[in-house]
Amino acid sequence: MSITVVGSIAYDAVKTPFGERERMLGGAATYFSLAASLFDTVRPVGPVGGDFADTELEVLRTRGTPTDDVQIIPAGKTFFWAGEYGWDLNSRETLDTQLGVFSEFEPQLSEAARDCDVLFLANIQPTLQLSVLDQCHGPRWTALDSMNYWIDSARDDLINVIERVDSLVLNDSEIRQLTGKASLAAAAREILAMGPSSVIAKLGEYGAVLVSRDGFFALPAYPLERVVDPTGAGDTFAGGVAGFIASQPEAKIDHGLLSTAVAYGTAVASYDVEEFGTDRVARLTFDEVQARVADLHRMTQFTHRSVQETFA
Amino acid sequence: MSITVVGSIAYDAVKTPFGERERMLGGAATYFSLAASLFDTVRPVGPVGGDFADTELEVLRTRGTPTDDVQIIPAGKTFFWAGEYGWDLNSRETLDTQLGVFSEFEPQLSEAARDCDVLFLANIQPTLQLSVLDQCHGPRWTALDSMNYWIDSARDDLINVIERVDSLVLNDSEIRQLTGKASLAAAAREILAMGPSSVIAKLGEYGAVLVSRDGFFALPAYPLERVVDPTGAGDTFAGGVAGFIASQPEAKIDHGLLSTAVAYGTAVASYDVEEFGTDRVARLTFDEVQARVADLHRMTQFTHRSVQETFA
Repeated sequence: MSITVVGSIAYDAVKTPFGERERMLGGAATYFSLAASLFDTVRPVGPVGGDFADTELEVLRTRGTPTDDVQIIPAGKTFFWAGEYGWDLNSRETLDTQLGVFSEFEPQLSEAARDCDVLFLANIQPTLQLSVLDQCHGPRWTALDSMNYWIDSARDDLINVIERVDSLVLNDSEIRQLTGKASLAAAAREILAMGPSSVIAKLGEYGAVLVSRDGFFALPAYPLERVVDPTGAGDTFAGGVAGFIASQPEAKIDHGLLSTAVAYGTAVASYDVEEFGTDRVARLTFDEVQARVADLHRMTQFTHRSVQETFA
Repeated sequence: MSITVVGSIAYDAVKTPFGERERMLGGAATYFSLAASLFDTVRPVGPVGGDFADTELEVLRTRGTPTDDVQIIPAGKTFFWAGEYGWDLNSRETLDTQLGVFSEFEPQLSEAARDCDVLFLANIQPTLQLSVLDQCHGPRWTALDSMNYWIDSARDDLINVIERVDSLVLNDSEIRQLTGKASLAAAAREILAMGPSSVIAKLGEYGAVLVSRDGFFALPAYPLERVVDPTGAGDTFAGGVAGFIASQPEAKIDHGLLSTAVAYGTAVASYDVEEFGTDRVARLTFDEVQARVADLHRMTQFTHRSVQETFA
């Protein structure tokens, strides 16, 4: 079984209350791949420029990730993003975005990438997401992420892709923007009517919510005393979700399986934010992930107790 | 067993995307009492003016609530609050606050109110909270709420009360403001060091978090397709939490009991926001509460599954 992800491979400049990095490896496909590689083979698809260092390619190859579908365009520059976080790390300002090699990217997947079991379309132009989806040979599970920019500027294209995937993985604010509904439950219902069989809402520090035709599931974020850099948390989460699904080739992908996938995604993402960039997830072990999944299980338990119904 | 709550009994003018009310019964002690009365006898303590209608007093008396500790000051005016909510109901602007009879309120509790088993100090001036705490004969469980205004303007008084209660029930933004810590986990640890054995953070649409010396527990809000009026949700939640604790006189008040209490609080609060003001909770039944507690239990379950550790 294997996973294919298409999305940015980037250099990021990031400033948080705990420090700054002027040029660190980033990008949605990078974070996703590092997380998913804990569970299965993942093939990142995306372009980089001649400025992309071999040492970064080595990080991408963590846990044996094949990089055959990373296109190196020697004359081009790698996608660059700069951002700064507020004191509580919940607000983020984008200071710079340079598309570089991404401005003329036309994905051409290898046979191995087309043969994937699980396909994740990270946040890129919806027409590119559609092109990748068309090249794949019927993956068992497909999902996509997007952002406010595409919801505004390429809404029809985005809806075209949404209609064709199994799941939407979006921030709750983006889900509200897409549907115009204030209630997440109502917004999710509207998205389910478009085609997907599940919606996974990323709530940042408040965790994640899964809405499928079979129910509602919510999980808090893993509580941390110190968040150093939230960059990539959403893509790491998605990589954990998709990786877990790929690791269960015999299982039916139903509400229960997706709930557990959300727990794995949450656990992996909680490590991502503890250090700058990809540092923590690159050296993460599977035992560490399972320890936090077990913690999350414990932290969400409560016991029914009967109430002395004097007044009931 | 019984519960005492001190706090505002008010008239509210509220505007939400679903309508407006020019003058409806409100106030923290009101919402709290309506919720707690589902579980046990609750005695609201607070002043109202000569303008307070008998019909409102009747609502306060829902499920047999004694109103002996509601002081009627014929020459005064009832506390008044006016506010307006944004389209997604998460932002709220206060348009007017008139203290009325609250400006000279000096609580004098009846013997019955002093004899309470559970005491809740709703959001009022910390010196008044302290006076009420001093009048009570050693309640089994005590908790307080507060707000940004007191954290800013009466910090030392507030800390004095915090040091003497069992639990703090605050919005997460207020917990951050109080401690200056961005991480809720770190902030809660700091509050536990002040004296309380638990902190309950209200996260609005994202639910609630309990941090005690024995662990961390998180529960999402009950998912609703339509929220009509969030006014009083926090106080209704607190009333459900305190009510549940009062309903368990033989139980040890530990992390597990508080977790279940948070589930009951969440369930009751979810009904509050479905209609304007106190309408929904006034006619709420205990069976309806238990149905949503069971739903919440189901919505937070996930199963451990072993992962094919090809790469682990």
